[in-house]
Amino acid sequence: MICIALAQINPVVGDIRGNTARIISYINRASSKKADIVVFPELVLTGYPPEDLLNTPSFIDSNLKALDKIRHHTKNITAIIGLVDRGQNGALYNSAALLSNKKTLGVYHKMHLPNYGVFDEKRYFTPGNVCKTFKVNKTIVGVNICEDIWVERGPINKQVGKNGAEIVINISSSPFHAGKYFERYEILSRRAMENRVYLIYVNLIGGQDELVFDGRSMVFNPDGELIAQAKGFAEDLLVVNIPQKIQDTGYPPDGRAGKIQDIEYTEEIYRALKLGLKDYIRKNGFKKVLIGLSGGIDSALTALIAVDALGKENVLGLYLPSEFSSQLSKQCTLNLAHNLGVRLLIIPIKDIYQRYLKSLGLSGKITLTHENLQARIRGTILMALSNKTGAIVLTTGNKSEMSTGYATLYGDMAGGFALLKDVPKTMVYQLSSYGNDLFYRKSGKYPIPMEIITRPPTAELKPNQKDSDTLPEYNVLDPILQAYIEENRSKGEIVQLTGAAAAPPKRDKLRPACPDECRELFRGASLKEVERIIRMVDRSEYKRRQSPPGVKITPRAFGKDRRFPITAAYNY
Amino acid sequence: MICIALAQINPVVGDIRGNTARIISYINRASSKKADIVVFPELVLTGYPPEDLLNTPSFIDSNLKALDKIRHHTKNITAIIGLVDRGQNGALYNSAALLSNKKTLGVYHKMHLPNYGVFDEKRYFTPGNVCKTFKVNKTIVGVNICEDIWVERGPINKQVGKNGAEIVINISSSPFHAGKYFERYEILSRRAMENRVYLIYVNLIGGQDELVFDGRSMVFNPDGELIAQAKGFAEDLLVVNIPQKIQDTGYPPDGRAGKIQDIEYTEEIYRALKLGLKDYIRKNGFKKVLIGLSGGIDSALTALIAVDALGKENVLGLYLPSEFSSQLSKQCTLNLAHNLGVRLLIIPIKDIYQRYLKSLGLSGKITLTHENLQARIRGTILMALSNKTGAIVLTTGNKSEMSTGYATLYGDMAGGFALLKDVPKTMVYQLSSYGNDLFYRKSGKYPIPMEIITRPPTAELKPNQKDSDTLPEYNVLDPILQAYIEENRSKGEIVQLTGAAAAPPKRDKLRPACPDECRELFRGASLKEVERIIRMVDRSEYKRRQSPPGVKITPRAFGKDRRFPITAAYNY
Repeated sequence: MICIALAQINPVVGDIRGNTARIISYINRASSKKADIVVFPELVLTGYPPEDLLNTPSFIDSNLKALDKIRHHTKNITAIIGLVDRGQNGALYNSAALLSNKKTLGVYHKMHLPNYGVFDEKRYFTPGNVCKTFKVNKTIVGVNICEDIWVERGPINKQVGKNGAEIVINISSSPFHAGKYFERYEILSRRAMENRVYLIYVNLIGGQDELVFDGRSMVFNPDGELIAQAKGFAEDLLVVNIPQKIQDTGYPPDGRAGKIQDIEYTEEIYRALKLGLKDYIRKNGFKKVLIGLSGGIDSALTALIAVDALGKENVLGLYLPSEFSSQLSKQCTLNLAHNLGVRLLIIPIKDIYQRYLKSLGLSGKITLTHENLQARIRGTILMALSNKTGAIVLTTGNKSEMSTGYATLYGDMAGGFALLKDVPKTMVYQLSSYGNDLFYRKSGKYPIPMEIITRPPTAELKPNQKDSDTLPEYNVLDPILQAYIEENRSKGEIVQLTGAAAAPPKRDKLRPACPDECRELFRGASLKEVERIIRMVDRSEYKRRQSPPGVKITPRAFGKDRRFPITAAYNY
Repeated sequence: MICIALAQINPVVGDIRGNTARIISYINRASSKKADIVVFPELVLTGYPPEDLLNTPSFIDSNLKALDKIRHHTKNITAIIGLVDRGQNGALYNSAALLSNKKTLGVYHKMHLPNYGVFDEKRYFTPGNVCKTFKVNKTIVGVNICEDIWVERGPINKQVGKNGAEIVINISSSPFHAGKYFERYEILSRRAMENRVYLIYVNLIGGQDELVFDGRSMVFNPDGELIAQAKGFAEDLLVVNIPQKIQDTGYPPDGRAGKIQDIEYTEEIYRALKLGLKDYIRKNGFKKVLIGLSGGIDSALTALIAVDALGKENVLGLYLPSEFSSQLSKQCTLNLAHNLGVRLLIIPIKDIYQRYLKSLGLSGKITLTHENLQARIRGTILMALSNKTGAIVLTTGNKSEMSTGYATLYGDMAGGFALLKDVPKTMVYQLSSYGNDLFYRKSGKYPIPMEIITRPPTAELKPNQKDSDTLPEYNVLDPILQAYIEENRSKGEIVQLTGAAAAPPKRDKLRPACPDECRELFRGASLKEVERIIRMVDRSEYKRRQSPPGVKITPRAFGKDRRFPITAAYNY
């Protein structure tokens, strides 16, 4: 019997000193729980992903020195630590070091380096080529890293088949997207079963720029059954004894052992957004946020999540009405701020707007110039208050807008963090309902007023404007955007896929790429409409390049995940 | 004897139809010059780099269909075309196809894929593993692609040593940075000599987002001597007969055959900026540009290059004075606009500024909030005029400012293209002198007034402000930034390198990383000063993420070339 502690912690990228202290404190906690082995996530020492920090030799030195320090804290315990190792000719390896009784038992080098999606590991690392196993208290343990377990016939096969590993430990920093948990569960369960081995999977948690790591570290028995799982979206120290059958364990408490411990789709997105926001603010040394509240649903949801993540005392709302703002918007904003308990500042922009029109010699007839001007005045006011207060501005645009360019650069796009950047509008509605229910359970009231949810979306930059003047209805738009941006489909395929006659594509219930409600309402789109939308997406790349970061929640977010040229004359 | 035409052309990324037409017209031109082989650059059919367009299957299909079309235009000539080939299981190859007499002779797959700096080729491509040679008119020809020729013991060794190639052709899309030509020259000359073979190097030309390809395709004889070179920064069709000794050829006309055909350091940077700007404007469907002129040197140089690249009728200057703008700035701006012959619009921002102060309840005392406000009013006015006229705004900030964050987001950073983004301030001065001389030779007058060059840099956002209130002198700052950003040096190394007592580091004359003048003036910096600058660089990453693209001219530009986390707590 061997006792293993899964130390699912939240490091800060680059903060090697702070991460080292945190690791040592978790080693001590694991020791006090009589663990034989304590396991930390991939690259826990540097934080993940360190990106081009890895090109600085002194950064690598620091992380190696930190390992030396940690080693002195491993009396009577074996610690497995993710770090960067340096080999011949300065080659770098994404590595797992085994420290035991103040000695280094060995170092494993990641063999399979992901270089797709958000990953750039071949930019930095050399792949390892040795499938090591190690003996800990008479148990043979195989260690490998993240991608290694995803590939068919990877290191685990040799570690078990040839070297006789009884337990295989995979340390990971696996970024979240909605439904990703299920993919992990499936692959890990299969690998445990294929190899008839105990499989320990330790994942990172925390937010880092556009990525969120959701934790949910897992332990599988040789039958491929889940026997323990750590928390989602929070630090955890999960201690398990091995060997162990499902009936031996009290975990998880609700008796669903052996089954998927997935979180409901909307809930996991909500929690990812909350953690991503909280960590971006905290890790960058901010405390307070400013949000421009418009009376619309995007800013309402942004404010709700900000209050949940940071506390209402750290959220300041700004209502910046123009002559086109309706009474309804004002009332909605006042109610929202009241319900959330956040301070609200009201600054009308009419006088400034008129001054600009005069200086620019613009007539009263509303053009795109006039619309953008209003948005940019608001952006300037928000940024001035940011300068004055030290609070960071959250922008409120969603993925449907970011995709089509339905947003004003330096206007509503001005700010430090774009919380909903990767959230399609249809999902904004689902999240708002979810958030309302969540607050209702705590306070007995719904913070987002019903009018905000039911009113037709509008930018209110000219009289009687509606989003649907420019864009298709969002339940038509979002599936097209998903097919184009996330699934790389051509316009022909999209029309077929979304034809009025065609049924919504079947998807695994556990990972609906587009919310069911949206698929159900979907009425299809013509070739012309699809072409128009694709053109909007392609032509807005220059705007997205200048947008603030936001939390990745879909399989393909903008940014590192989708690297498109601005200058691109391809006609789909 | 064989006649080879080097078709150094300027494709548009994604414009497969347009690129195909251009390729066919160059094949016809080469035929009319009796060429046996016509060679095009790497990925000429898709443009380089196509980035995530490569993830769309229909994009790959289009490029393969285009090759079919081109094949029908190869009667009595062999054409070598860079394209994306598709293999088993959808694997993609960066390829060179040999078409001859309407047939495909063969396809070579690039073996060495760069995945550093600006390159992401392992994200898309599978490496090839066959070192093919081909017989064209009884001559054995080896073909390989870009990086293949840079590695030691690469495909060329086998193509010559084992397969007996008499001519080796390398097709490239090699991005420009100052001094890169010399690196290429050196490596190509060595490879020709090592293998005792004729080496034909065909490089792309044109601007693509942040990259410029400078052309200067070259031909070396088996003694490693340069026997012909195509134009720099322009399309060209260079026809050479092989075998050929240096004395056989009339090229180059100035009799410097066999020697480096390098362009003077400042001149090549100037030409890269001009081409990068011209192509960004043209390829994105713009014609006219707007520039905020401040009376300072950055905006003056930006305007000068814009006039040279686009014509004075396509440049509109805006002078947007505040109460802190000096009479000197106004006079400098008026003179500059007059000298360049560009239209100038003057819009004072005082009234708008006062309106903001009132609405925001800000007092008269000048703080950072006030400074940024002025910059953002200017950004808003420029963008309003951009909306109104359809012209794109050029921002004028330089690399020294981008590095240290000495710039206002949504203020002076607002615009579509940041021409000088990668140009250190010390180089801005050199380029201004160069540009002035260039115009003088054409028109007999210096467009940038001497006062602009000699006055101390100032943002004029409060009374008597100078850049040196916040930043070290630029001749101190720039070498530190170079050591940190381009050379990844730690603070300790930088202090040593730049210590007052230390001599300026020796560099190859042909590629001075920091202009000589700047090194000569350099007086060193203290540890404290170096630390302060590094902190400024690290803390400004969030600004750079929201900056417009600009032309890469140094070995490491911001953007794809330097991928730093925003959230990064590393303390150097």
